[in-house]
Amino acid sequence: MVTTKSVGKAHPKILRILRLRVPDKPGYLGKIATLLGDLSANIGEISIHSQGPDFIIRDISLQLDDENHLRQLEDAIAGIDGVDVECIIDPVQLVHQGGKVEMRSRVELSTLAELRRIYTPGVAQICKLIAKDKSFSKEYTGISNTVAVVTNGTAILGLGNIGPVAGMPVMEGKSVLFAQLVGISAVPILIDSTDSDYIVETVKAIAPTFGAIQLEDIAAPECFEIEEKLQAALSIPVLHDDQHATAVVVLGALLTITQRMGIDLASCSIGIIGLGAAGSGIAQLLHGFGVKRIFGTDLRQPAMDRLKNLGGYPVDLQSVMRESDVVVATTGVPGLIKPEMVKQGQVILALSNPDPEIDPDLAIQYGARYAADGRTINNALSFPGLFKGALMAGATRFTDAMKIAAAHAIAGQTKMDNLVPSILDREVHKVVADAVALAAHAGQ
Amino acid sequence: MVTTKSVGKAHPKILRILRLRVPDKPGYLGKIATLLGDLSANIGEISIHSQGPDFIIRDISLQLDDENHLRQLEDAIAGIDGVDVECIIDPVQLVHQGGKVEMRSRVELSTLAELRRIYTPGVAQICKLIAKDKSFSKEYTGISNTVAVVTNGTAILGLGNIGPVAGMPVMEGKSVLFAQLVGISAVPILIDSTDSDYIVETVKAIAPTFGAIQLEDIAAPECFEIEEKLQAALSIPVLHDDQHATAVVVLGALLTITQRMGIDLASCSIGIIGLGAAGSGIAQLLHGFGVKRIFGTDLRQPAMDRLKNLGGYPVDLQSVMRESDVVVATTGVPGLIKPEMVKQGQVILALSNPDPEIDPDLAIQYGARYAADGRTINNALSFPGLFKGALMAGATRFTDAMKIAAAHAIAGQTKMDNLVPSILDREVHKVVADAVALAAHAGQ
Repeated sequence: MVTTKSVGKAHPKILRILRLRVPDKPGYLGKIATLLGDLSANIGEISIHSQGPDFIIRDISLQLDDENHLRQLEDAIAGIDGVDVECIIDPVQLVHQGGKVEMRSRVELSTLAELRRIYTPGVAQICKLIAKDKSFSKEYTGISNTVAVVTNGTAILGLGNIGPVAGMPVMEGKSVLFAQLVGISAVPILIDSTDSDYIVETVKAIAPTFGAIQLEDIAAPECFEIEEKLQAALSIPVLHDDQHATAVVVLGALLTITQRMGIDLASCSIGIIGLGAAGSGIAQLLHGFGVKRIFGTDLRQPAMDRLKNLGGYPVDLQSVMRESDVVVATTGVPGLIKPEMVKQGQVILALSNPDPEIDPDLAIQYGARYAADGRTINNALSFPGLFKGALMAGATRFTDAMKIAAAHAIAGQTKMDNLVPSILDREVHKVVADAVALAAHAGQ
Repeated sequence: MVTTKSVGKAHPKILRILRLRVPDKPGYLGKIATLLGDLSANIGEISIHSQGPDFIIRDISLQLDDENHLRQLEDAIAGIDGVDVECIIDPVQLVHQGGKVEMRSRVELSTLAELRRIYTPGVAQICKLIAKDKSFSKEYTGISNTVAVVTNGTAILGLGNIGPVAGMPVMEGKSVLFAQLVGISAVPILIDSTDSDYIVETVKAIAPTFGAIQLEDIAAPECFEIEEKLQAALSIPVLHDDQHATAVVVLGALLTITQRMGIDLASCSIGIIGLGAAGSGIAQLLHGFGVKRIFGTDLRQPAMDRLKNLGGYPVDLQSVMRESDVVVATTGVPGLIKPEMVKQGQVILALSNPDPEIDPDLAIQYGARYAADGRTINNALSFPGLFKGALMAGATRFTDAMKIAAAHAIAGQTKMDNLVPSILDREVHKVVADAVALAAHAGQ
């Protein structure tokens, strides 16, 4: 049986570290903590930054409602005799400072002998080897474990078209996940253009550097064309994350839900609300999985046409809700699904972040058998393993079989009390990668 | 006074590790070592790889003449009763295995709180900050400490046009040097094209990703055009390593030599033999330094024209040798300078690797006051500090003043018993970077 989790609406809070200069005498910390508590500040860690002859500098981590709350605290603390606010640190900014990734050496460089092996003259031997037989580049360069994370910044998170440089923190974040979760070297590549052909030509031109290409946060409909043209031109795997990696996690979650409900996913009618990058990728993958009846709706006619070409049924919102056993919504429109639209026994994944198309509790209240929002449906569960598996197998493209294998692996790794496994569980990503590699080999 | 170092012609040897399975009884190692010695193999390190119930696996590092020498040893060792050759390992190949660099995370990722700061939702805050004011990308992304190392593989080391993938081990080597010597994140970018405009357009398209561009091992004359067009189009520094980084080290070495000789470099007549990428860069920088009389020679007329445009004197080889107080040769032609061409008291840098235009000893014998070959004139002495300094200063291009400052710093860091400092001395690169940054600031 599936149990419904009620996860209340997230209250966005802000995190700050208050750096205070305090007289080095007993009693001050108590005064400060009491004052902070009186003003409803949640105190986290308290550490000593440094010490002077008669003062001490303390870092106090706080969770606050907003900037106003922060200012209120600052004023109150300034009122304590002898205590000064040295500075206020934003821990989110702190972790991004100087960038989150960097190219590092995998080899030592402390002796001239090492230098002569790594660089001239030793390196010439390796160059000659590859010049004679290019396949040696797999063994003696990092190419086949390196992924380009390419964006033009037109659909960064929920922020929209903010340009590639402002999107860089997300690309570096992807690169962190690649490095930490599956040991892939992922290189952000920023292209300041909204022209599909320009992006395709640029990526083609630098493709010899990489073992695979991840397209990232590129707006629909350009993302479809760019992915298709690139994959047609290159003999390395190309994947638009937002379309396919999300779809794999959704399929994994649906496998888990339907298995627990004792029903067969492929026989279900599935409705997809919002046919942008994510919705379209979900429709495609479910179709590949064998789902026969896929309903979908979107305000944009080309998106509806794409669904039709796939063999799905483009209809209106009401019809999707009426016809579908399982509904997946990726519209970005909070509250789009009205409670009265919910059909008895329906499964509803309302995935828009931070505010879903319908609150899961409300959906259950109106008859849904299972409902969840998008906070745990994170494509970071699938893309590291998808790429690692494809690179391990030397695959030339991502096939449906590889994606479906990844979804099964994700479902298999899910603990009984949850919908999907933990992103931070390295074992999950290893299992996904192995499954993807196996499927790639089977298809070769 | 300058002392001449006689460095005999390098005998290229090969390094191999012999992995032997040997009975775990006293006496065997002695037998093996004696046999190896009898066959003129230089034994380096001997380590134990693993151990069995009655045998031991030993790794024996050897320096050998060539592959024949190796086969001779193998046969001889096979003759020792009970000893087997398990495998032969090439330590150069070993160090390149899997590639020499990788993108790694600079941040921890072990808790959900960290994930939420690095990735969604926390990262959105940083994206918004940069979207509002792009200059925040300097603080919160790695862009301003990241350099693209771009090649099309047309002039890889002395190997010529072997293509970008076969050139990758060199690009990764550069990246190792950047990371290890000055902490720059350097990303190899391979472009499979010999068309200058294609390369310029590609690098322009991905330039938002980087704080500077290093062009690497691109053949002349395309390299001149590519560098010039890129620098004109971009507001970040662009440097073709082979032209300018080599020139900086040569200028540094000439400053050291002339200072020790008590003569003024700018007043010297300087002759440059070979006006390809390196020779042309040297001519340019010496001109910028204030050298008035620069003679040069090359078989290609466009190369001669470039020198003329710079205000230099294109002449024939004999004239260069006759007219110049200082001769710098970068032709790749061993033995091009005949001993009888050497002028009394001349300074000769015969830089082609591995075999110079004239053996330094021979040059001294025929009257040169100072002579050296190219083994220590390595552009790795200058490019890390040049880029670090430029990035530190936020420079938009490399100026002559920055290059000359780097050359002075290199000369200043040279120990009295040498021509240039040690590449592995991190302090040298720091001093070069500081000097370059200072010069960049002064020019702003």
